Amino acid sequence: MNNKNRQMKLGAFFMIPGHHVASWRHPESHIDEILTFDLYRKLAQTAERGKFDMIFFADGYAVHDHDGIGIEQTVNVRPDPLTLLSALSVVTTHIGLASTASTTYNEPFHLARKFATIDHLSRGRSAWNVVTSSSEAEALNFSKDHHLEHSARYERAEEFVEVVKKLWDSWEDHALLVNKKSGRFADPNQVHHLNHKGNWFSVKGPLNMARPIQGHPVIIQAGSSESGKELAAKTAELIFTAWQTISEAQSFYRDVKGRLKKFGRTEESMKIMPGVFPVIGRTEKEANEKKQQLVELIPEQVGVGLLSSLISYDLSEYPVDEPLPELPDIKDINGAKTRFQLIKDLGDRENLTIRQLYQRVAGARGHREIKGTPLQIADQMQEWFENGAADGFNIMPPYMPGGLDDFVDLVIPELQNRGLFREEYTGHTLRDHLGLSRPVNQFQKLNV
Amino acid sequence: MNNKNRQMKLGAFFMIPGHHVASWRHPESHIDEILTFDLYRKLAQTAERGKFDMIFFADGYAVHDHDGIGIEQTVNVRPDPLTLLSALSVVTTHIGLASTASTTYNEPFHLARKFATIDHLSRGRSAWNVVTSSSEAEALNFSKDHHLEHSARYERAEEFVEVVKKLWDSWEDHALLVNKKSGRFADPNQVHHLNHKGNWFSVKGPLNMARPIQGHPVIIQAGSSESGKELAAKTAELIFTAWQTISEAQSFYRDVKGRLKKFGRTEESMKIMPGVFPVIGRTEKEANEKKQQLVELIPEQVGVGLLSSLISYDLSEYPVDEPLPELPDIKDINGAKTRFQLIKDLGDRENLTIRQLYQRVAGARGHREIKGTPLQIADQMQEWFENGAADGFNIMPPYMPGGLDDFVDLVIPELQNRGLFREEYTGHTLRDHLGLSRPVNQFQKLNV
Repeated sequence: MNNKNRQMKLGAFFMIPGHHVASWRHPESHIDEILTFDLYRKLAQTAERGKFDMIFFADGYAVHDHDGIGIEQTVNVRPDPLTLLSALSVVTTHIGLASTASTTYNEPFHLARKFATIDHLSRGRSAWNVVTSSSEAEALNFSKDHHLEHSARYERAEEFVEVVKKLWDSWEDHALLVNKKSGRFADPNQVHHLNHKGNWFSVKGPLNMARPIQGHPVIIQAGSSESGKELAAKTAELIFTAWQTISEAQSFYRDVKGRLKKFGRTEESMKIMPGVFPVIGRTEKEANEKKQQLVELIPEQVGVGLLSSLISYDLSEYPVDEPLPELPDIKDINGAKTRFQLIKDLGDRENLTIRQLYQRVAGARGHREIKGTPLQIADQMQEWFENGAADGFNIMPPYMPGGLDDFVDLVIPELQNRGLFREEYTGHTLRDHLGLSRPVNQFQKLNV
Repeated sequence: MNNKNRQMKLGAFFMIPGHHVASWRHPESHIDEILTFDLYRKLAQTAERGKFDMIFFADGYAVHDHDGIGIEQTVNVRPDPLTLLSALSVVTTHIGLASTASTTYNEPFHLARKFATIDHLSRGRSAWNVVTSSSEAEALNFSKDHHLEHSARYERAEEFVEVVKKLWDSWEDHALLVNKKSGRFADPNQVHHLNHKGNWFSVKGPLNMARPIQGHPVIIQAGSSESGKELAAKTAELIFTAWQTISEAQSFYRDVKGRLKKFGRTEESMKIMPGVFPVIGRTEKEANEKKQQLVELIPEQVGVGLLSSLISYDLSEYPVDEPLPELPDIKDINGAKTRFQLIKDLGDRENLTIRQLYQRVAGARGHREIKGTPLQIADQMQEWFENGAADGFNIMPPYMPGGLDDFVDLVIPELQNRGLFREEYTGHTLRDHLGLSRPVNQFQKLNV
C-alpha cells in the first residue's frame, strides 16, 4: 500500500452500446453501428489512446426474453466477443484483449486453442474471463433441460481451467525447432500428452497450437461467492468484482488476498479490480442531469426485468412502487449469489421500492456508481485504490462511445496528473501492463 | 455448359505452409512466420489480388503423432482458423472467408454465432465448410473414448446444419427496429424460437445475433461417400472434392447435381470445385524439378504416416518398397471412405510401392496434381471446366507463399485472357462472387 510508484490498473468494459440498460436509447449512442466493425475499432482505439490495460467483453449465450418484452425493448444481438477480439488485435498495438467465455457450455480444447491463437496474433495481449453459466435460457440452447447447480458449475470450472492450462503448457516454449535441413520441426521431448482424466473431462492432448506468447493468457474471474473466491485464489490473476461501499470492498480484498498464501501465491500475483460506473459531468449538476436522462429512458418492464435477472427472481407480478417482496433464502438461489445479496441489501438498507431499486441498478447493475466532476471521480477512485479496496478498476461507461470518450479525455488526465496512472505503455504484453509474471510451464523438466 | 459467359470459381486453399507434406522444408516456405499474423495477411492479400472467390482453411482438432515421429517431423501447430478469418476480414475487402468447422465436436449455437459474426464483420463474405471428425485422436481430446461411427457422424451433421440454419433465421432480416424514441429495439413477431428437439440436439433459440448479411454464410461440404453426397445434395452450396481423372469427376458431377432436384434445388444452386495441386514451372522441365525437389524433402516415416492417415490404415509395419498390403473392405473403414478408395485404386492401377504411392500423394493428398507451364495448367483446368467435371477449382499451392504467388502471377492472367476468370470483383459478398442466391428465411411469413 505504501509503494509510491504503485499505479492503478484499468479495464474498459465493452458492454455495447453501454453499461446502462437504456444506453441504446441515449441520443449519442451509436446503436446503429452495433453490427459493424467500425464501432468496435473506434472504441478499442479510444481505449488504447487512454492507455487502458485492456478492453474487456462480457458475454452470454441466450437472449433476454420475458414474454417478448425483452426481445422488444432490450439489445439482444451481440457479436461473438472472441471473434471481435481477433479482429481488434489487427487495429491495436498495445492494449490487452479480454473476453468472457463460459466453462459450462464449452470444451477446454477449443477455448485453449482460440485464446492461444489470439495471444499469438496480438503478440501477447489476450486474457480470459472464466465464468460459469447460470441462466436457464442458456441451458436450453445447449441441449440441457436445466442449468447446472451452483457447486457443480464451480467443480466443472475448476477442472476446465486446469485442463486449459495443461493444454497451453503442452508445448514447451522452445519445443519448435523448425530446422528445414534436418527435417526436425519440433522436439518430441518438449511436447507433452496431458492424459487428463477427471470427473468432467478426459483430454489426451497435446494442443495443436504452440504455447501462448504470455505462457498463459491472463486469467480473470468475477465470482465472489465462497466457491468463487476459492477458485479465484487458486487460479485468477485478476478479479472483477462488484461492491457498493469501501468497507465491503476492503473486506473482500483482504479476504481474497489472504487466501493466496495457501496456494503458494504472492499478493502481487492477483489484481483486484471492482467495477465502476462513472457518470461524468463538467459540473455536479451536469452529472446529475446525465444520470436523470438515462433513468427516464428505462421502460418499466425493462427495469423490472433487469432487476429480476440480477437477483435471479421474477418480480414481474409485484407492485412496482412497493419495496421488494419477501425473497428466497440465498442458499436457494442458483444464480449469481453475491449479486443477489448485494442488491437485496441495497434495497433493504435504503428502503427502496422496486422502481427506485431498478433505477438505481439499471446503470451500474450492482457495481459502484460514481457521479460527478472528473476531479470528484478521480478522488473516489484514489480513495479506494490507496486504502486497500482495489488495485484498479473496471470502467463501465454508461453509453458508447460518449461515456468512454469522457473518461479518456477528462478523468484519465487527472489520474495521470496525480501519478496514479501510466502516461505511456512501458511493456508490450498484457502481463507487462498488469505487472504479472509469466507462468512457469508445469511440464518443463527442472534443470538438474 | 454452353453458357459463353460462364466463369470458373476459384478457392485458395490455405493449408499453411503449403499442401505438400514437406512444404515447410522448402527453401522458400515462410515456416518461421507460421504463428504471426503477417504471413496470413500477405497470403490473403495475394489471393485477393488474384481475384479468388475465397480463401479457405482446413482444420482438425488433434496433432499428428505416431510414436513421436509425427511430432518431430510434421507441422503440428495451427492457429484456430475462425479466429484467423476474423482478423483477415479487417485487411481484405472482397475475398470470401471460408473455414472448416466440425459438427462432431462443436455446438450449433456457438458455430452459428461465430459464422454470423464473421459474416457481419466482413460485410457478407463468410463460408462454413461442414465436416465430420473421423480420427480417434480427436475423440480423445473431447472426452470420448472412440470417435463416432460413420453413419452416426452424418446423422449428427445433418441435424447440426439444420439447427444452425434455424438459428441464422431466428432473426428475420428486418427484425431490428432500433427506434430510440419508442424504445422498440426489435419486433418480437420477427424473432423466432426454434424449439428444436431432435436426436442429437435440443435448442430453444433464438440466436443472440442478427441474421447474417448473406442470410446464411455459404455452406461448403467435402464428403463424397453416399451419405456425404446425400447430405451435400440437401444442404451444400459448394462442394470440394478429390478426383484423379476427368471421367470420375464427370460421373461425380452428374451424380450430385442429379440429386438436387428431389430437394427442390436447381443445378446452379451448387458449385462443384475439385481440388487441384498445381506445380508450375516456366518450362515443363522446371515444373518437374520443382516436384522432385519436394519429393526429396519427404522423410520416409512422414510419407508412410501421411499415407496411413489418408487411408485410415496403419502401414508402418509394412515394407516400404513393396505394394500396398491386403487392405480391409471399405465398409470397415470408419474414416474418409472415398479417400480410401481413391488411393487404393491409384496404387492398384499403377502397381505402386508404398514409397511410390506416398511420393505421389504427398502433395495433392488424393486430389489432382497438374504440373507444367501456366498454359498447360490452364488447359487442364479448362478441359474439366468445359466438360461437365467442375464449376471451378480449389487451388492447393504446394508451398507458401511462393506457390500461391506463382498461381496468381502466371496462371490467373492466362485464365483471364481466355475469358475463363473474372478480371475484377463485380459484387461484394461471397454469394455475389459465386452466383448463389440469398436463402429465404424459413420463419418468414408469406405475404398474403
